[in-house]
Amino acid sequence: MKHHDVRMRGFATRHDVDEALAILRARIAPLASESIPLDEALERVLAEDIVASADVPHFDRSAVDGYGVRARDTFGASDYNPIPLTLKGELLPGRSLDLSLGENEAVRIMTGAPVPPGADAVVMAEYAEEEGGRVNILQPISPYKNVGRIGEDIRRGDLVLKRGRKLRPQDLGVLASIQVARVAVYRRPTVALVITGNELVEVGQPLQASQIVDSNSLTLSGLARRLGAIPLRKGIIRDDYAYIKAAIQQTTEDVVIVTGGTSVGAEDYAPLIVQELGELVVHGVAMRPSSPVGFGFLQERPIFLVPGNPVSALVSFDAFVGPTLQLMQGLEPVYPYARVRGRLARKIASAIGRVDFVRVRLTETGVDPLRVTGASILSSTTRADGFVIVDKNSEGLDEGEEVEVYIY
Amino acid sequence: MKHHDVRMRGFATRHDVDEALAILRARIAPLASESIPLDEALERVLAEDIVASADVPHFDRSAVDGYGVRARDTFGASDYNPIPLTLKGELLPGRSLDLSLGENEAVRIMTGAPVPPGADAVVMAEYAEEEGGRVNILQPISPYKNVGRIGEDIRRGDLVLKRGRKLRPQDLGVLASIQVARVAVYRRPTVALVITGNELVEVGQPLQASQIVDSNSLTLSGLARRLGAIPLRKGIIRDDYAYIKAAIQQTTEDVVIVTGGTSVGAEDYAPLIVQELGELVVHGVAMRPSSPVGFGFLQERPIFLVPGNPVSALVSFDAFVGPTLQLMQGLEPVYPYARVRGRLARKIASAIGRVDFVRVRLTETGVDPLRVTGASILSSTTRADGFVIVDKNSEGLDEGEEVEVYIY
Repeated sequence: MKHHDVRMRGFATRHDVDEALAILRARIAPLASESIPLDEALERVLAEDIVASADVPHFDRSAVDGYGVRARDTFGASDYNPIPLTLKGELLPGRSLDLSLGENEAVRIMTGAPVPPGADAVVMAEYAEEEGGRVNILQPISPYKNVGRIGEDIRRGDLVLKRGRKLRPQDLGVLASIQVARVAVYRRPTVALVITGNELVEVGQPLQASQIVDSNSLTLSGLARRLGAIPLRKGIIRDDYAYIKAAIQQTTEDVVIVTGGTSVGAEDYAPLIVQELGELVVHGVAMRPSSPVGFGFLQERPIFLVPGNPVSALVSFDAFVGPTLQLMQGLEPVYPYARVRGRLARKIASAIGRVDFVRVRLTETGVDPLRVTGASILSSTTRADGFVIVDKNSEGLDEGEEVEVYIY
Repeated sequence: MKHHDVRMRGFATRHDVDEALAILRARIAPLASESIPLDEALERVLAEDIVASADVPHFDRSAVDGYGVRARDTFGASDYNPIPLTLKGELLPGRSLDLSLGENEAVRIMTGAPVPPGADAVVMAEYAEEEGGRVNILQPISPYKNVGRIGEDIRRGDLVLKRGRKLRPQDLGVLASIQVARVAVYRRPTVALVITGNELVEVGQPLQASQIVDSNSLTLSGLARRLGAIPLRKGIIRDDYAYIKAAIQQTTEDVVIVTGGTSVGAEDYAPLIVQELGELVVHGVAMRPSSPVGFGFLQERPIFLVPGNPVSALVSFDAFVGPTLQLMQGLEPVYPYARVRGRLARKIASAIGRVDFVRVRLTETGVDPLRVTGASILSSTTRADGFVIVDKNSEGLDEGEEVEVYIY
């Protein structure tokens, strides 16, 4: 039997959550950009400013169905004094007509059709009556009424969307309208998931006594994917220094996550391996759960040491990996959770100097902290509606206190 | 020249937004379910209740690194009165050891390893000292301390997740932990986009005078994709009754969206075609923008008539198509937008009987309605931070009034 020393080596220094985040902000730069078709650009992040190279629309267009006229020809028109104009033809969207409007002339025109030279307004159909080759105008109209002017939507030279914009559906429409068929966006980070643990078995495989199913790779894949990253599962690695080291060395992804064996116990090899292969920058953070979390860099690639306990894995990701994936895509780090305010149904105990992530339910009596402490209780994260963060300067929160809840 | 009557035919009846939504709720059922691997199930919607078929964990496991003991053997232990126990071996996660603990015996045990028969608690490493083949216990421990009991996370028979649940990252982890490798989820709706308009050109194609780029298919694709649907662009169809009818007849998708030609003008063929091929249920809704919106059914497939103006297209989608796609996936319809509250920087005029969707910016002075009225100004939706909904019973909102903003 190999002899293990189960005595804790202890964390050399414990970082604040804020300090650890500041290190990531300082060290993580956006990835290179890539050019992709507009149709694939939803929720991708612009790596370039977009300046309009043309006006939208690039011609004066009718905003209604009606009659293109010279506004001054309609002055004085009314139901009792209809002004007859000579109809010169019809303009439909997408069809140009080689005509120019003269005095007392009108053209039938549909919404979106180009307003012809000479015309400067469009009388809506309900304020006009056609009669033979003429149209009687029943109301006066002012110049440019019902005309969408050149550039009224977007002017050539306008800064339409800025670098760093996470593209919304309507942004894709705007980009199309200025003929931007491809955009430069930050590359999606790839994330290697190195899951360690002799006790772990892939989902669907038969479970021996003493074994459990690897759930972290599923949770972490989902978390990464939700933030636009591309997770790659590297299998389940045995708790063995050489195996774990080899698995880490074989990764080429932008980000590496190692789960399990990340603390300071005898079989916690990952921190030592990171020290050997690169630099271990943070190990141990004043937070609960997930205090044994750490990270470092393999050259410039961040590597995260995530506790194997599933709740800790989730909290570690939210606190540190998520912000990293956002920074790599040119985004400001923000939790990908909607926030609501509510009052605590029961008090939450905490300690000064430590940030607590407390799972809560939203109930009729208020924001109710779950009565589970174990970071191993994964189902608590599915029973919870979200979580509350207890600041490091707080000893806890009182019953009835207003809190902000991040909704899962 | 073909003769068109530009006189409006008028909307027979105009529906309330709520009435129109109620019709959709009554008519739209969830699609059939399909079985997919867990790794692809993020943000899909469960079509089945999930009941645990086993306990998690399925063995008592150590929650710490330390020594498995019989709690009663430690009573009276202290730094001044260490109690020596005979070390029987070592238990690591994933490895079973064929031993049973007797009186005054202990076993070295790591986090996650199975607690052996006989042992009922685990003394943390820092409260014990190894010495030769013995370990001195320095603190008493109570039964089941530091032991994760069988079923403490999930009990066999528990209802773990309910039908209708949109799967979160941690849900995937929980499902893995109970050996659910595939899940039944509602099928993602497919959405046919039938874009009509002679003036429209695909993005990237050269623009003639009087032509504009089709932006709606990009915006609508993005909106559909964001809600988990699969958009399929059916090309740009000429404003021609037969062509549009053929394009609609050729669709096989779960939902059809027709843009352009949806009003009551001479070239607005889509409503007539829907009447001919199926039933036109709603045509004209008391809302702004997008009042000419309509929908009907081709047998049981909903078909939406969406105005070609890009802002109207966006609002139509949010108001009616989005809820339909959610209902088809077994979800309650909700806007896919975060909400914040703020005070209006300027008043918003509206009219009783009509629901207004007003684009706003969030500025230092408050929630500022954009000074654009035209539904053709797509860029207003990218300049806006979100929108405010003015209820049909409201004549408008005053400066300083608190409003809810849906953030784009």
